[in-house]
Amino acid sequence: VSALRRVAIIGVGCTRVGEHWSRSLVDLFSEAALASIEDGRAPEIDAVFVGNMFSGFAVHQEHLGSLLADSVGLSGCSAVKVEAACASGGVAMHQGFTAVASGMADFVLVGGVEKMTDTSVPVTLDALMMAENREYSASSGITFTGLNALVARLYMEKFGATQEEIASFAVNGHRNAVNNEFAQFRSSITVEQVLRSALVADPLHVLDCCGIGDGAAAAVLCPLDRAREFCDTPVEVAASSVATNVLSLCERDDPLSFDATRRASSRSFHAARLSPRDVDVLEVHDAFTIVGVLSLEALGFAAVGEGARFASSGGIALDGAIPTNTFGGLKARGHPVGATGIYQIVELFWQLTGRAGKNQVDGARIGVAQNVGGVDSTSAVHILRRVDG
Amino acid sequence: VSALRRVAIIGVGCTRVGEHWSRSLVDLFSEAALASIEDGRAPEIDAVFVGNMFSGFAVHQEHLGSLLADSVGLSGCSAVKVEAACASGGVAMHQGFTAVASGMADFVLVGGVEKMTDTSVPVTLDALMMAENREYSASSGITFTGLNALVARLYMEKFGATQEEIASFAVNGHRNAVNNEFAQFRSSITVEQVLRSALVADPLHVLDCCGIGDGAAAAVLCPLDRAREFCDTPVEVAASSVATNVLSLCERDDPLSFDATRRASSRSFHAARLSPRDVDVLEVHDAFTIVGVLSLEALGFAAVGEGARFASSGGIALDGAIPTNTFGGLKARGHPVGATGIYQIVELFWQLTGRAGKNQVDGARIGVAQNVGGVDSTSAVHILRRVDG
Repeated sequence: VSALRRVAIIGVGCTRVGEHWSRSLVDLFSEAALASIEDGRAPEIDAVFVGNMFSGFAVHQEHLGSLLADSVGLSGCSAVKVEAACASGGVAMHQGFTAVASGMADFVLVGGVEKMTDTSVPVTLDALMMAENREYSASSGITFTGLNALVARLYMEKFGATQEEIASFAVNGHRNAVNNEFAQFRSSITVEQVLRSALVADPLHVLDCCGIGDGAAAAVLCPLDRAREFCDTPVEVAASSVATNVLSLCERDDPLSFDATRRASSRSFHAARLSPRDVDVLEVHDAFTIVGVLSLEALGFAAVGEGARFASSGGIALDGAIPTNTFGGLKARGHPVGATGIYQIVELFWQLTGRAGKNQVDGARIGVAQNVGGVDSTSAVHILRRVDG
Repeated sequence: VSALRRVAIIGVGCTRVGEHWSRSLVDLFSEAALASIEDGRAPEIDAVFVGNMFSGFAVHQEHLGSLLADSVGLSGCSAVKVEAACASGGVAMHQGFTAVASGMADFVLVGGVEKMTDTSVPVTLDALMMAENREYSASSGITFTGLNALVARLYMEKFGATQEEIASFAVNGHRNAVNNEFAQFRSSITVEQVLRSALVADPLHVLDCCGIGDGAAAAVLCPLDRAREFCDTPVEVAASSVATNVLSLCERDDPLSFDATRRASSRSFHAARLSPRDVDVLEVHDAFTIVGVLSLEALGFAAVGEGARFASSGGIALDGAIPTNTFGGLKARGHPVGATGIYQIVELFWQLTGRAGKNQVDGARIGVAQNVGGVDSTSAVHILRRVDG
């Protein structure tokens, strides 16, 4: 195999997640992208990778690579949109990593953006179901929340987990989001509030589910051996992997095994010569509480069937075994779907460079981000490492 | 910079372009992908890159990477959809090239697919306009054909070119498509027929414009040093470049200069240490006759203002200075937008391996493909080279 170059992140930026009624997709991306370029003091940008799931469906705009590169003064460079449902941000990061690692580009802007509130909620829910098989699953009438509810019910039945234990994942995210100025929901909640909130798809209550929001996030990558020219505290992308699983939940042998995440994390840990024990801070894709639970198990931070109990017993808290979703996660920071994978990278960068404020994990050196499309039909797993000395 | 691995194409496949009323996007992709895997005798596939422009808008299906990998038995591998309007196929090829060149993957399936006939023609025309700026250009009411008509009018005024000269580009494509069993339109036409056909957007007649069609195409890539294990006649991807221009036509200094193509072709010729004089066969993006003409100029095969005269005087014919669109081009082979860039690769592969039948360019050794999104807002330029001995 060829000799890949080592890759670093030198700057990041993002918008607040929320209902940005007065701002367009272009406005949001530009704010995040320009912030990341300024943060990283990048002298140039050779290529742009934009993660986005459904701009065509929702705002009737495609060609986001060229459009958004142009919007921040980068017309001329290589630019492309990449899509893998809610993992679009993570796969954009993966393509950016590959471009720098290969030597095809030196300075790469990776961004994610989603404008979810320009259409009605039923249209947005229909858009999200494009992550599953339209001809079969979607035509049955089930929603994306419904699919995840089936998974939650099966998990409870098989492992004796309780709704309270699963709900603790949302409580953790909300607690952390209080201190995140970019979060969509900055209020603490309790397990009792989750269980008293409206039932969306039994057993998932509305507070088990992430909200609908607009947002954009961006990061600038360059070769590690040049990173210190532009950044006092570069962070290395120690590994980047994308993997898939059988797309449709109904066709899988084991609906409770997140095999895309298992494959991607196995490859990334192997490439970085690290294991879950080495990780100081974790971002998992908790689009629904049950997804956070199963992700902990697939990544190797909890045994099979133990994820919910691990979370509810404090394992994912800031002072727990593995501080998780320290800026609120999808549930509380928000989940503008195509941007989420990049928000995770932004937040890990802040943790690993000591910029995480009140939620700083002391001495955090290794971070992992897991970003999922569909019900773990695609998974992108990145391992970031602080560069010491 | 790092040492990129050399990359080869070992197999290709495609569907006929046309109105496939009874076949889905998944059906079409699977046919092309399985044909390419069989053609290349690939022992495994590590990653899938799917080019597609508007499946979300037209058939309410996203997540094509995971969906289509799964549909051909490749669930587990890395998979992603890439989009750059009508250049989606070309940028998918570029991502696949980068994955193999970097060593991130050994065997890569690059495919393109578009299902354009599942919606009404007005919806399809609206979908195509997503290549331009929705908030500004599209909201003026102009269609994508209208934008290209303005370019054609300006070209005629500035350089004294005639409609007859420009129309010759379509005549060339139709003449070549007669012998292409995968082409949408297999009938010869004359310049007089183009000028007598319905006027769509003055000065463009309907026979100046490509049609609407469904189709899929695919190719399998691997490291050049392993290609002979699987293929008697591998073709090297000697260079792969993507570049952009100011997105909107109305914001450009010179609407007649295809600067994205100029940048991408300049980078590719430089990387391959070749010039237009070395090229034996050419595929250009003739979505409209005028786009073919301006592409010839931007790629360096005709002087500025001379492209139409060059085409009409036989320069692009099979026996001309540079045989162009030898399987019919977008006009006659057809233009299922996200697949077009891969159809070009398939057809060049056939030419460079002596499988072009009645339209074979004798001794063809170097081929160039140019695939454009928007009015040359994105351009992907690939140089392929037959591997001798």
